[in-house]
Amino acid sequence: MSNFGESLLESKVVRLHETAAGCFTVVIDNPPYNLVGSQVFAGLQSVKSFAEDPANDVRVLVFKSANPEFFLNHVGLEISDGEVSEPLEILQGWPAFSHWLSSSPVVTIVTLRGRAWGFGCEFALSADMRFASRENTRLCLLEVGFGALPGGGGLEWSQLLAGRSRAMEFVLSSDDLDADTLELYGLVNRSIPDAELDAAVDKLARRIASFNPAGVAMAKRYLTKGQSVPLPADLAETAAAAGSLLSTDAGQAAVGRLMVKAGGVPFSHEVELDLPKLCDVD
Amino acid sequence: MSNFGESLLESKVVRLHETAAGCFTVVIDNPPYNLVGSQVFAGLQSVKSFAEDPANDVRVLVFKSANPEFFLNHVGLEISDGEVSEPLEILQGWPAFSHWLSSSPVVTIVTLRGRAWGFGCEFALSADMRFASRENTRLCLLEVGFGALPGGGGLEWSQLLAGRSRAMEFVLSSDDLDADTLELYGLVNRSIPDAELDAAVDKLARRIASFNPAGVAMAKRYLTKGQSVPLPADLAETAAAAGSLLSTDAGQAAVGRLMVKAGGVPFSHEVELDLPKLCDVD
Amino acid sequence: MSNFGESLLESKVVRLHETAAGCFTVVIDNPPYNLVGSQVFAGLQSVKSFAEDPANDVRVLVFKSANPEFFLNHVGLEISDGEVSEPLEILQGWPAFSHWLSSSPVVTIVTLRGRAWGFGCEFALSADMRFASRENTRLCLLEVGFGALPGGGGLEWSQLLAGRSRAMEFVLSSDDLDADTLELYGLVNRSIPDAELDAAVDKLARRIASFNPAGVAMAKRYLTKGQSVPLPADLAETAAAAGSLLSTDAGQAAVGRLMVKAGGVPFSHEVELDLPKLCDVD
Repeated sequence: MSNFGESLLESKVVRLHETAAGCFTVVIDNPPYNLVGSQVFAGLQSVKSFAEDPANDVRVLVFKSANPEFFLNHVGLEISDGEVSEPLEILQGWPAFSHWLSSSPVVTIVTLRGRAWGFGCEFALSADMRFASRENTRLCLLEVGFGALPGGGGLEWSQLLAGRSRAMEFVLSSDDLDADTLELYGLVNRSIPDAELDAAVDKLARRIASFNPAGVAMAKRYLTKGQSVPLPADLAETAAAAGSLLSTDAGQAAVGRLMVKAGGVPFSHEVELDLPKLCDVD
Repeated sequence: MSNFGESLLESKVVRLHETAAGCFTVVIDNPPYNLVGSQVFAGLQSVKSFAEDPANDVRVLVFKSANPEFFLNHVGLEISDGEVSEPLEILQGWPAFSHWLSSSPVVTIVTLRGRAWGFGCEFALSADMRFASRENTRLCLLEVGFGALPGGGGLEWSQLLAGRSRAMEFVLSSDDLDADTLELYGLVNRSIPDAELDAAVDKLARRIASFNPAGVAMAKRYLTKGQSVPLPADLAETAAAAGSLLSTDAGQAAVGRLMVKAGGVPFSHEVELDLPKLCDVD
Repeated sequence: MSNFGESLLESKVVRLHETAAGCFTVVIDNPPYNLVGSQVFAGLQSVKSFAEDPANDVRVLVFKSANPEFFLNHVGLEISDGEVSEPLEILQGWPAFSHWLSSSPVVTIVTLRGRAWGFGCEFALSADMRFASRENTRLCLLEVGFGALPGGGGLEWSQLLAGRSRAMEFVLSSDDLDADTLELYGLVNRSIPDAELDAAVDKLARRIASFNPAGVAMAKRYLTKGQSVPLPADLAETAAAAGSLLSTDAGQAAVGRLMVKAGGVPFSHEVELDLPKLCDVD
């Protein structure tokens, strides 16, 4: 997984490698279970800065995980003055980042292997394309089960990709879907046998990067017009709504109950592996 | 099917039961084949009134049938002064009811088992989510075959759920689709083995009802914005267009020819079981 | 394939036959591999003129190919003054034709058997419905691989039918999809065993043509409102953008490189059979 040589970034937890002209791979590696905290988010922001510099000629970006158990996990919960919350810079920075994933001229592809709970799922859904390991993918937007809602991209992309009824099921159930169901619902492009996944994504990424860059960028621009991607203001609104919900008494009670049920934060490895189960009816 | 105890409504043909806090089941039971007439429609309206009273704390509504052959059937045709029509209170009341199914804060789920022809199909499509018995589901919008069109929700939801090309096929063919094709087309969330269907829907409904109600309601509201559900005025327009078409000479000729072919109204049980066949090219 | 009797048109390469009242079949037959040139496009335009004459009572049009290897192929490239381009009357006439396929009162159905590269693929996607031979269908929008983009319908219909992420994959990869993947992506209504395909489409077409024409036309009109089909001005814009891209130095370099790789134009039968392979990374 780290046979790419030196990373182009300073971040230890988010590494960037050029795999072909114009074609780059991002490896997310925050042991033990790829939680999203300030370091990971800063690393992702530095990928964005790198890609926005025309001198770097970034045309295709593939995101993958160094950890086969977790593609990318939820945001680490913080407790201060007895209130549970998520780090402010992530809450505030995520809507613009989510919008960049779909609206920048760079083509963004996710190699999905392992679990993606909450933020990690929203991240995967916001990229241009997603390919999932058939045997080893589980996606869950667990925010409603935790008393809030998947604002800032989760709600919006679920609906755009899966249609209203299946988005409603995915969002309101706060339960996870496997690769074949994700494929049926359109939440991933395809479910691919794990042994073939990396080669399939690599082939697609290199192929796109080999074409006339003006054609690729213009095609993506036409596929990004109108209502085909959520607008930044709408993403910011649902992200703020999620934060407000979490800070209400009912939101705090919901998350507090689950923290007790889980045996406190940070959650154990065992709890993380099956996090949607925490929302089961007792 | 009636192990729910006393119904919360006066209606004999539409019964309502609380299955968990905030979680209710509606059972439709109008022998012999769940035709929609004034009694059934009044029963459905009383479910809506009950759910709209905040004192009743209705957050999730599951609709199912007492009759495994028919989830919910078409509207019973009436003949007066030699003209065939549908009961006026249903034609006029349905668009607002259809809109309520998707836009109220209550989450509406359909357990689909058996046939749903015409109105019954439009009803199922207008709910937030639908889960179908794999072995025993047939949906058909037979209105075009009867000389009219599935206004007031059928057209609109077919297009929103299945996309334009498959909606065109479903609506213009006036033919029925089985559970696996409905799943492929997105017209149901999933096709589930019959023996597992009730437990799967029950689990989902109770799970949603156990979450912070403010989060559930807000998530549904965000999934109901913009063009994601048909507007009442548009539903009323297509419902009225359907009624007008039926009253033209060509509409009356089409329905009259089928009534003769079927051996008169009301249709026999045998004809009802295979109603889309009535529209076969001779 | 030509057991239809005399064609209703003068064109030799595009033939038209009435198969039932209101129901017509168009057979495209331009050996050796159904390239689209001035003759084929003129033949298609004469189908449109025929269908627009109310006296001909055209209500359902089925398009199929006389050649099982190719449903309909790309536009033949022309070289003049050292510049590669497509025939101007096709580039300029296609957006309006594409719009007619989806917005006319006539119901348009494609029987997909064999390959459809570039223009042929855009044509198939622009019709109201498409049914594909399970064993023998390959669709590819290879324009991005040739340095341009699939303007005038390819971009738009891919997105409307398959959603943004799968459209992005289909358009940017310039690679082909088989019938089962096209069905999964919603790019065809269904994948049908080859031996059953013609009978299935024929049954659907005759069934629709047997219904009250006013109901069929009104249902199609309601399924064509708003953003559900691309507007002529948008189709013309992306078609013009494609032409401009192809005439840039980068576009000419891309197509020139592939022409050399293929051994010159016109492409050999062997190259045509596997055209997307020409865009493989070397």
